[in-house]
Amino acid sequence: MSKPWTLDPDRLFDPNPARRSVARSLYTEVEDLPIVGPHGHVPPALLADPEATLGTPAELFIIPDHYVFRMLYSQGVPMEDIGVPTVDDTPIEKDHRRAWQRFCENFHLLRATPTGLWLSDELVNVFGVTERLTGENAQGIYDYLQERLASPEYAPRALFETFGVEVLCTTDAATDTLEHHATLRVEGWGGRVRPTFRPDAVIDLSTAGWRHNIDLLSQASGTDVIHYRSFLEALQERRSFFKEMGAVATDHSATTPHTERLSETEAQGIFARALSGESSGEDAARFTANMLVEMAGMSVEDGLVMQLHAGSLRNHNAVVHRRFGLDSGADIPIAADWTRGLRAILDERGNDPRFRLVVFGLDEAAYSRELAPLAGHYPALLLGAPWWFFDSPLGMRRYLDAVIETAGLYNTAGFNDDTRAFASIPSRHDVWRRITCDWLAGMVVTGVVDGEEAGDMAREFAYGLAKRAYGFQREPVGRA
Amino acid sequence: MSKPWTLDPDRLFDPNPARRSVARSLYTEVEDLPIVGPHGHVPPALLADPEATLGTPAELFIIPDHYVFRMLYSQGVPMEDIGVPTVDDTPIEKDHRRAWQRFCENFHLLRATPTGLWLSDELVNVFGVTERLTGENAQGIYDYLQERLASPEYAPRALFETFGVEVLCTTDAATDTLEHHATLRVEGWGGRVRPTFRPDAVIDLSTAGWRHNIDLLSQASGTDVIHYRSFLEALQERRSFFKEMGAVATDHSATTPHTERLSETEAQGIFARALSGESSGEDAARFTANMLVEMAGMSVEDGLVMQLHAGSLRNHNAVVHRRFGLDSGADIPIAADWTRGLRAILDERGNDPRFRLVVFGLDEAAYSRELAPLAGHYPALLLGAPWWFFDSPLGMRRYLDAVIETAGLYNTAGFNDDTRAFASIPSRHDVWRRITCDWLAGMVVTGVVDGEEAGDMAREFAYGLAKRAYGFQREPVGRA
Amino acid sequence: MSKPWTLDPDRLFDPNPARRSVARSLYTEVEDLPIVGPHGHVPPALLADPEATLGTPAELFIIPDHYVFRMLYSQGVPMEDIGVPTVDDTPIEKDHRRAWQRFCENFHLLRATPTGLWLSDELVNVFGVTERLTGENAQGIYDYLQERLASPEYAPRALFETFGVEVLCTTDAATDTLEHHATLRVEGWGGRVRPTFRPDAVIDLSTAGWRHNIDLLSQASGTDVIHYRSFLEALQERRSFFKEMGAVATDHSATTPHTERLSETEAQGIFARALSGESSGEDAARFTANMLVEMAGMSVEDGLVMQLHAGSLRNHNAVVHRRFGLDSGADIPIAADWTRGLRAILDERGNDPRFRLVVFGLDEAAYSRELAPLAGHYPALLLGAPWWFFDSPLGMRRYLDAVIETAGLYNTAGFNDDTRAFASIPSRHDVWRRITCDWLAGMVVTGVVDGEEAGDMAREFAYGLAKRAYGFQREPVGRA
Repeated sequence: MSKPWTLDPDRLFDPNPARRSVARSLYTEVEDLPIVGPHGHVPPALLADPEATLGTPAELFIIPDHYVFRMLYSQGVPMEDIGVPTVDDTPIEKDHRRAWQRFCENFHLLRATPTGLWLSDELVNVFGVTERLTGENAQGIYDYLQERLASPEYAPRALFETFGVEVLCTTDAATDTLEHHATLRVEGWGGRVRPTFRPDAVIDLSTAGWRHNIDLLSQASGTDVIHYRSFLEALQERRSFFKEMGAVATDHSATTPHTERLSETEAQGIFARALSGESSGEDAARFTANMLVEMAGMSVEDGLVMQLHAGSLRNHNAVVHRRFGLDSGADIPIAADWTRGLRAILDERGNDPRFRLVVFGLDEAAYSRELAPLAGHYPALLLGAPWWFFDSPLGMRRYLDAVIETAGLYNTAGFNDDTRAFASIPSRHDVWRRITCDWLAGMVVTGVVDGEEAGDMAREFAYGLAKRAYGFQREPVGRA
Repeated sequence: MSKPWTLDPDRLFDPNPARRSVARSLYTEVEDLPIVGPHGHVPPALLADPEATLGTPAELFIIPDHYVFRMLYSQGVPMEDIGVPTVDDTPIEKDHRRAWQRFCENFHLLRATPTGLWLSDELVNVFGVTERLTGENAQGIYDYLQERLASPEYAPRALFETFGVEVLCTTDAATDTLEHHATLRVEGWGGRVRPTFRPDAVIDLSTAGWRHNIDLLSQASGTDVIHYRSFLEALQERRSFFKEMGAVATDHSATTPHTERLSETEAQGIFARALSGESSGEDAARFTANMLVEMAGMSVEDGLVMQLHAGSLRNHNAVVHRRFGLDSGADIPIAADWTRGLRAILDERGNDPRFRLVVFGLDEAAYSRELAPLAGHYPALLLGAPWWFFDSPLGMRRYLDAVIETAGLYNTAGFNDDTRAFASIPSRHDVWRRITCDWLAGMVVTGVVDGEEAGDMAREFAYGLAKRAYGFQREPVGRA
Repeated sequence: MSKPWTLDPDRLFDPNPARRSVARSLYTEVEDLPIVGPHGHVPPALLADPEATLGTPAELFIIPDHYVFRMLYSQGVPMEDIGVPTVDDTPIEKDHRRAWQRFCENFHLLRATPTGLWLSDELVNVFGVTERLTGENAQGIYDYLQERLASPEYAPRALFETFGVEVLCTTDAATDTLEHHATLRVEGWGGRVRPTFRPDAVIDLSTAGWRHNIDLLSQASGTDVIHYRSFLEALQERRSFFKEMGAVATDHSATTPHTERLSETEAQGIFARALSGESSGEDAARFTANMLVEMAGMSVEDGLVMQLHAGSLRNHNAVVHRRFGLDSGADIPIAADWTRGLRAILDERGNDPRFRLVVFGLDEAAYSRELAPLAGHYPALLLGAPWWFFDSPLGMRRYLDAVIETAGLYNTAGFNDDTRAFASIPSRHDVWRRITCDWLAGMVVTGVVDGEEAGDMAREFAYGLAKRAYGFQREPVGRA
């Protein structure tokens, strides 16, 4: 049997005693602040249905988590063998115990990765596991987890309370009926679980099934989408519905951050071509660029905060995409030109006090070169938390190092967990809180800020920035 | 009342005791070395007129400093409200006390920024302010600063002595008459305050007012600029005049570092189109690229060191540009291709011992990838100090980490403050001296260099490199 | 006389006592592990001929080392003066004592560079030099080194044993007869010194002398290369020969990582144009892109690991290239797009368990943005060690920081020394071992991995990863 598995209470704090002491002290003040989750992918059904559970250990930790299965796949473990569902009818492992076994045998692959860190924290601190996962103890731990997962204190709503979540936003298609959010509102959870308007599947003309999505949009909006203008009207109607249902934000994904204002005639022409199945790849790119500018205009009107996630080349691996569909671990970042890309949208709306745009990128070289200087100038622009691969201890440090000197703290938008893995939410926020406190401690011991300033800033990082960025609360938080 | 505002004497030194001790010891040897400022934007009138003052606190700390007002603007403070002058007749706050009030109320926005650090050092160590700025103490501190600024020891020339400035170079249009420099020379300050030849406004065909600038050039040079050849002659004449007036260098700004040798016919064709108002944006870009190569040729002849600042997309915010003109805080960096960009100029002059080119970039990804390898090979090329947003504690660390291993110390050009804010000069040099000493201390405690080598290198960083790069003194300084 | 020259036994370890203690302990376990060198440029003749020597001190330390002579050149020392051979008959310094003198006088230029570190380690720990090189002691040290180099224990084969090299791979043209490797095999060194198949000179149509190289290829392969198909056959034959001679890998160099599948007709057309001297630069680029995909297919068949080094713009300095030929210190990196570039090759072979591709880049911005995400997904892809300018203490730290969190340890390929400088091999591996141990120590003291995990990972970095990546041994090494 292995030695007991515990986590260092001072983990992620620099080992210099002076810095560590300050970091610990800052962390003590923020570790128990409520969790604000303005962006993520938790299925609302998980919280809407009081009977919902987190499923089997494999369903909880492996199958929906592309961070986990990509790493196993990269080392030769077929995704079918760990139960990842296929879209082409290839048979997969249905026995979750066997999937779990393969996972545990390969747990060492996650050493020094953020996924390894989150899983360790969840297993040890949420579920009380006492041995690091191995091939030997896999089945015993499966039994243990099964039992825990069946108990009422591990029901999603119970964990929501245990985790201290103040507000959690989901991400929902523009055509979604939001029935789970409706249920949640009826049951008094409306302010705590909020939808987010994500219209990619109707805006990106190259989406598989786009034409069908437009039909869904017509249905959902009650507006017959027959041309560009009715398309915009349908979107406005849907935004309005989302807002009624508690949404505070929209979210947009794009391969590049390119924005461009098309003339009404051009936009209408492209949209018409798309409706008749004749639009090109370039049409799609320009239409998306134009729609980002349109969406900014709508945000000015309805006050929904606009989020833009840009820089991932989706579905890089054609073989895996055909077999496993979207979000299969093969979305790979590319270089981004935010400076030229955002010019059109900022030219129209960047100085408007009614507009707020939060941007997320995957090209770290653009942090200090483009994103921080832009956020440090435009009133409408905030820089979102380090995203995806960079939501990691070292990724966060690089973000803070590259961004804060130029953008300042107050032009950033705090943290979001951006996860489907509900049980990992506290672990992810905890990493952010530890890293920001340690970073601030570094500023204190080098005389850049004093302890009082650092305390304020730590509370902002952990809580205040996200609340104000998304308008959950407009007042400053924790400022002396 | 707040607790007394003091700065940590060990600020910016790593908290590891062994490293800090070495850093402190290195710093002790360089902190009082004279200041060499080979590039900056201090108005020469400030020093030419013995009666000149630094103005009101708002004029000193806010109004001319785009680092400051961009940060306030980004958080919703209208630039008009803090007295930034408009070019479109929009009325602005004329009461400097009110502007100061707004600034002090927002001083926390500068936390952990280099601007915050410089201002703190100036306020505390140059002006003796004893409380951190807040909305409450704003007016009292204004009174205090007013009084100080009126006293003779805060006159620019007095501060020049107090600061220990050995030489300060200004930046002057090619068409400038340099009358302030003439005054300074008459009064024996010629060797201490030197002009720099900056011909951007006549070289960049897309400059607003370019045609008028060409007329000014004709007047200033006594050469009727009617075609490309007379344009070159006029520039040569002006360079010669600048050199007589004490200039040691030229300075060039370009959106990208692209250089290209046009044929005489092409260059003449573009210039003719420009004179008749028919040149295109591409004409302008190619003409600049060609003129950089031409300027290198002239530098070979007259010995003026050539400086190139490349990588900023100027005037990104059209609204702000229309209202506030140039240098309004919305110049945003873009990615740069130095490797291909500099090929033409280095192909012609990079191996020439009579030529020296000092380059400054805003794309940190190019430090280790392009700039350090180029500087570590071409005899003519030196890499300038971290520029603009990167003239910051962490920016400097990244620069040193990325550059020195590949370029070596001796292919860098030391530091320059690049500032309009005269009173911030010592603070800026002090940050550089602290950071380089601390970085060298890191090298010492990890056994990469020994203490004696580090001492030599610290003196080079602080003083020797800049002196030799610009030929203020050709001999090595501080080498054992 | 200077104080004795010694190297800190704890060099490159962080000064934090807790971290240093862990680093030292990890290092103790790996410092004496055998050296595995899967990629490098040591001439096989050096080991094939038992009478071979390392030459004069100048031949050993200066003349073949472009890291050294580029730095001297950048500071104005003519390469002719330090004995670097010319290809245009320009006379050079033939007196190696004088070349050595110039080198020693300029030894300070290498301060804080990896070259300085390797040379120091070699001089002190391999050769027993006791004074840092200066102009004054240059001749005395030359005498001393001459004597050492003449003694049997400094013969290359003796040093091979002393260094503890388990396997060393050379890099050999596709047309090479491998006679030195044949000798080595006869003498029982075949498993220890292995050739690597490098076909750049016949694949890159823009290579000087390409047409002649094709004739050599016909001769060497016994296949008359008259069209694209016979070209592929000849390459297959040569790969097969290399494999018989002990090769485990191929190596490919390209300016960019662009891969592309041409139709047979297109490829045949370009090849025909090349044979008749009519191919263009674009032809060459597309042909290389296509051949990388072809080579991947051959690797699937014959099991040779494929290495790709991309991102260097060769021969940037035309003057130096004309005088000194290839590899003269003026190869400068450029930005790389690996995400789009590798799509074609990975689309065909990235999921194939029989294929292994190890990639090396010079654009550090692509580490975390592209290379780590790709390696963390594709089973066939491993990320090679930091290359060239980045084979340095700080370059390695940036690599580890940027890569491991996303790619994981096990999708990297360990270390290779990539050097012509045989005597520097242990120094280079030692830097890698120190830096990886120190990096892991950082992970231990911040609670990210525990001591046992770190010990396993340290052995992987030093030894196991390289062995498995290249199939020297397929079993996991050092895993608990």
